[in-house]
Amino acid sequence: MKPSYVKDRDALLTRLSRIEGQVRGVSRMVDEEAYCIDVLTQINAIKAAIDQVGLLLLEDHIKGCVTSAVRQGDQSKVDELVKAVERFAKA
Amino acid sequence: MKPSYVKDRDALLTRLSRIEGQVRGVSRMVDEEAYCIDVLTQINAIKAAIDQVGLLLLEDHIKGCVTSAVRQGDQSKVDELVKAVERFAKA
Amino acid sequence: MKPSYVKDRDALLTRLSRIEGQVRGVSRMVDEEAYCIDVLTQINAIKAAIDQVGLLLLEDHIKGCVTSAVRQGDQSKVDELVKAVERFAKA
Amino acid sequence: MKPSYVKDRDALLTRLSRIEGQVRGVSRMVDEEAYCIDVLTQINAIKAAIDQVGLLLLEDHIKGCVTSAVRQGDQSKVDELVKAVERFAKA
Repeated sequence: MKPSYVKDRDALLTRLSRIEGQVRGVSRMVDEEAYCIDVLTQINAIKAAIDQVGLLLLEDHIKGCVTSAVRQGDQSKVDELVKAVERFAKA
Repeated sequence: MKPSYVKDRDALLTRLSRIEGQVRGVSRMVDEEAYCIDVLTQINAIKAAIDQVGLLLLEDHIKGCVTSAVRQGDQSKVDELVKAVERFAKA
Repeated sequence: MKPSYVKDRDALLTRLSRIEGQVRGVSRMVDEEAYCIDVLTQINAIKAAIDQVGLLLLEDHIKGCVTSAVRQGDQSKVDELVKAVERFAKA
Repeated sequence: MKPSYVKDRDALLTRLSRIEGQVRGVSRMVDEEAYCIDVLTQINAIKAAIDQVGLLLLEDHIKGCVTSAVRQGDQSKVDELVKAVERFAKA
């Protein structure tokens, strides 16, 4: 079965490639000895962008995999989701 | 003046390049249609790694720039730090 | 319809009453001029305890309300859950 | 020596007593079997309020205790602060 995020595949890949560029940008800043606080601001932006990717994956997973599993009477995806939400909220 | 993290420059660049690889790895997982929860687990690992980079930058900044500024009677770095800590804790 | 957390009602009330006591304890520390870092340690403990209550509510909600709604073909609880998870993860 | 937050003592006590009331309010909601998502919304509000108290304590501590210690050539408060920021950001 295809994963639930397949419909957002292109959006996810675009975002991930942008994040990769942001991380490379931070390496460049460190290399060029940019001011600490400016580097930190970029780090915060990357955290927010990664979070957005995680939330989109979680949304697609809930609306796709988990919902179909529940409709088919499969409870295991619900237990797995609860643990995933917990780990994501704490990460 | 050199930024406070200069002494950890190589460690930072190594970590950032590892994070870049992790982000590329997530793109590959999405491309190969890996299971949602497995992708999410990788996202959490990236968040934790980015956080560690942020904390190291913050530590170096506090022990370097902020401490020297205070010794020279410059309070502005303290106000800036307080705002940076707030943004970092919320990001 | 009863909310999903009814089965954990007593556990929730016990935890909330313990959190109330922890908050009162912080007031007492502030009043007695305890050391800043010691007060902060207590604040962190309260945040973790509140988080645990939120996670238990979310777990019960997913396993109860959301699961029954999906079984009855009601998608609205899923959309609401996605937003709740997002707000909780960011809070 | 008085802790750095002494100047904000009344503001802190007011906020803490408001948080105590919010926690009691959540107990009441649970007791009256309020809807899960409404309880969660209140939990998020408490987390935000607790966070604000923590940030104020941290700000006062940095501007007070840590700054004076550094001026007197005492580095130990800086090391302690770095650890406190790390714990707070992760909590």
